[in-house]
Amino acid sequence: MKILVIGATGAIGQAVAAALAVRHDVIAASRSSTAYPVDITRHESVQALFERVGRVDAIVSTAGGLHFGPLGEMTAAQFKIGLHDKLLGQVDLALTGQHFLNDGGSITLTSGIVAEEPIAQGANASAVNSALEGFARGAAIELARGIRINVVSPNVLQESMDVYGAFFRGFEAVPASRVAQAYVRSVEGAQTGRTYKVW
Amino acid sequence: MKILVIGATGAIGQAVAAALAVRHDVIAASRSSTAYPVDITRHESVQALFERVGRVDAIVSTAGGLHFGPLGEMTAAQFKIGLHDKLLGQVDLALTGQHFLNDGGSITLTSGIVAEEPIAQGANASAVNSALEGFARGAAIELARGIRINVVSPNVLQESMDVYGAFFRGFEAVPASRVAQAYVRSVEGAQTGRTYKVW
Repeated sequence: MKILVIGATGAIGQAVAAALAVRHDVIAASRSSTAYPVDITRHESVQALFERVGRVDAIVSTAGGLHFGPLGEMTAAQFKIGLHDKLLGQVDLALTGQHFLNDGGSITLTSGIVAEEPIAQGANASAVNSALEGFARGAAIELARGIRINVVSPNVLQESMDVYGAFFRGFEAVPASRVAQAYVRSVEGAQTGRTYKVW
Repeated sequence: MKILVIGATGAIGQAVAAALAVRHDVIAASRSSTAYPVDITRHESVQALFERVGRVDAIVSTAGGLHFGPLGEMTAAQFKIGLHDKLLGQVDLALTGQHFLNDGGSITLTSGIVAEEPIAQGANASAVNSALEGFARGAAIELARGIRINVVSPNVLQESMDVYGAFFRGFEAVPASRVAQAYVRSVEGAQTGRTYKVW
């Protein structure tokens, strides 16, 4: 398969690209890529990426930023950051990408454990991650030509504990290599509308 | 209790205001109200509403628009409509309203059955409604001074079947008066972070 991975320089993206590259042709896109640069918060950039890459068999997104901060100080403007980045950015990859997928192709997006297991300062993450899972449920019943869509919900990564550990005390961190297998399952499996929890 | 109901002219809002008015002072706000007008998509308007109303014991929102349309034609710009209206609008009512609530007060927002039971043309609704339920889970663990937050997820209303019936064939429509009781339960009960499903 020809597989486009967006966010391929992140901890999860690297592990997913490596796991898929064993059997497939992986095109690695990211904000900092020189070959396949993309800013998912700008529709023009998403459209340009797909026109550059052409038709693919699978789209995998591990991209998107969120707002973290105390609820008591949170503003609507701050909340909008996650809506426009991790949520709308990934939704745009799906909405635009559906027209560049071959028959029977797949879309795999990324949510996160905070959708169901909230943490302090994480209200934006809980909302955005839940929205992505809802979007996949909704989109799955409408996608044409046998195209599927799933979401992977990772726990905090072992590789990220030095940065995010203080927010996730007591969470059983998982290695990125294990999270990557959920993306492989989505891409090479047959399910749709699913959230694969790696926790 | 002094209770602010936003979206009070809608089918659900009217029923909620009537159910709460039996025991409480209800302030009815809506886009078309002359006494308490509010456009929840504009933060300045939300802020002005709360400054006009002053401190309250409960905030109930039954407001917010969504984008409905075929997934195959949906654009990121259309998807953003629901994000900025039903999602960010209601989130702003919670974020801004938390500072105008008395100790032990409550916030009750509105999602909908499409969060979990998708319908054709409803991908935006599935995402937005799921996001609101996630937001309540996340916000519930951080709200100060004993303030609670819940979401009510109504089925399609019997009163709306002439307009939305074609989207909800086979759904067991519920009367607005029954949906209203879930809001009463949220306001006068003691739970937080919950989604009350009326279906």
